Amino acid sequence: MGHHRWAIAEGYIPKASNGPEPEMTSHETVCILNAGDTDAQVTLTIYFSDREPIGPYRLTVGARRTLHQRFNDLDKPAAVPRGTDYACIIESDQPVVVQHTRLDSRQSENALLTTMAYPG
Amino acid sequence: MGHHRWAIAEGYIPKASNGPEPEMTSHETVCILNAGDTDAQVTLTIYFSDREPIGPYRLTVGARRTLHQRFNDLDKPAAVPRGTDYACIIESDQPVVVQHTRLDSRQSENALLTTMAYPG
Amino acid sequence: MGHHRWAIAEGYIPKASNGPEPEMTSHETVCILNAGDTDAQVTLTIYFSDREPIGPYRLTVGARRTLHQRFNDLDKPAAVPRGTDYACIIESDQPVVVQHTRLDSRQSENALLTTMAYPG
Amino acid sequence: MGHHRWAIAEGYIPKASNGPEPEMTSHETVCILNAGDTDAQVTLTIYFSDREPIGPYRLTVGARRTLHQRFNDLDKPAAVPRGTDYACIIESDQPVVVQHTRLDSRQSENALLTTMAYPG
Repeated sequence: MGHHRWAIAEGYIPKASNGPEPEMTSHETVCILNAGDTDAQVTLTIYFSDREPIGPYRLTVGARRTLHQRFNDLDKPAAVPRGTDYACIIESDQPVVVQHTRLDSRQSENALLTTMAYPG
Repeated sequence: MGHHRWAIAEGYIPKASNGPEPEMTSHETVCILNAGDTDAQVTLTIYFSDREPIGPYRLTVGARRTLHQRFNDLDKPAAVPRGTDYACIIESDQPVVVQHTRLDSRQSENALLTTMAYPG
Repeated sequence: MGHHRWAIAEGYIPKASNGPEPEMTSHETVCILNAGDTDAQVTLTIYFSDREPIGPYRLTVGARRTLHQRFNDLDKPAAVPRGTDYACIIESDQPVVVQHTRLDSRQSENALLTTMAYPG
Repeated sequence: MGHHRWAIAEGYIPKASNGPEPEMTSHETVCILNAGDTDAQVTLTIYFSDREPIGPYRLTVGARRTLHQRFNDLDKPAAVPRGTDYACIIESDQPVVVQHTRLDSRQSENALLTTMAYPG
């Protein structure tokens, strides 16, 4: 179930946080569901406003598993810069479903946003 | 109107809450609209990052009715664990429309997110 | 541009509010864009968990206009009850685009959610 | 990847803000991803509830770039009024992906919303 390619146009990891780490750290997450019976090999490519894209970031989402990957934790080939506009394309060799979430705790009370990614 | 199968990739019931129960308890809800003239028999399957899926959870959504089901209240075949990443596939024998919402009251002011689920 | 029929599965007008009215009153809004050159005649039908649907509520969205209609302000054929789960189907004689938003000010800081409605 | 035309039905820039500018200024943003190898020429048209649309606003999104454009900063042919309901159609000569976000800091803690725009 799902698509092989998805996009998120709005990416932004706030620089600051309030509250206990890591639960309340400001973060962005790409949530991937692989409901099939074959492990999915997934690559992320990160796009910026003023430089060439970075990638691929490589993830594996097991068969019948979900992976909620924080962009904060990506480090190969490079960390995702904080306080910087970005976007992301997700490509998978198996059909998957992708959703995007942010927790913003720059102020003392956290705010949340989510949307299904765009299946392309 | 709608589809027979939907997916939510981002599931997470916060462990903590602030404010009067049950209204302000941190929760996640799957909202199902059955606008048709036949009762819909619906099953949920919950996916995790590190174990096999759990299900089916069985729900009935009456003809011309909406059901806003908190994941917090599901208990057969097992409760949905708190503070744990999950995902969900919703299957229905009638076409339905599915939307996903979270209220997070871990901090003293609540945050909200919503998205239409992915029709697969 | 758009569709003739849309659905929102998650409807809920919080009972309480904080902050100056009407701006910060807890509310739900259906936002309709009619980018075409003909006025759109729109009807809403409200679905509940435990009773028959109510409607039609009749709206006109002018040619090349947007209407952001608070569910709080609907009163014919009946007001939309507060603190009650509902859902909504939007039907239009012209193609329109529909988005759903809630502002929840039950606690002292407001929370927001939005999603495009489901085009059916 | 993407579409040539998108719509956002819910536009509203809150009049007031709390927190350091420009980061925490209440704002709305249209996030555009151009993953292709040709610069995209993009035009925005803004729709209102009670007057004719304003536009085109002209933007360029470079090849393999994302642009997160605040509606607050648009000024040609006219600024987008604050505290006013609006909607937006985005047209591009190249396929792009469009997402819509608001940060509302009218109260002391910020709230967020996002959704993918509607591909029409």
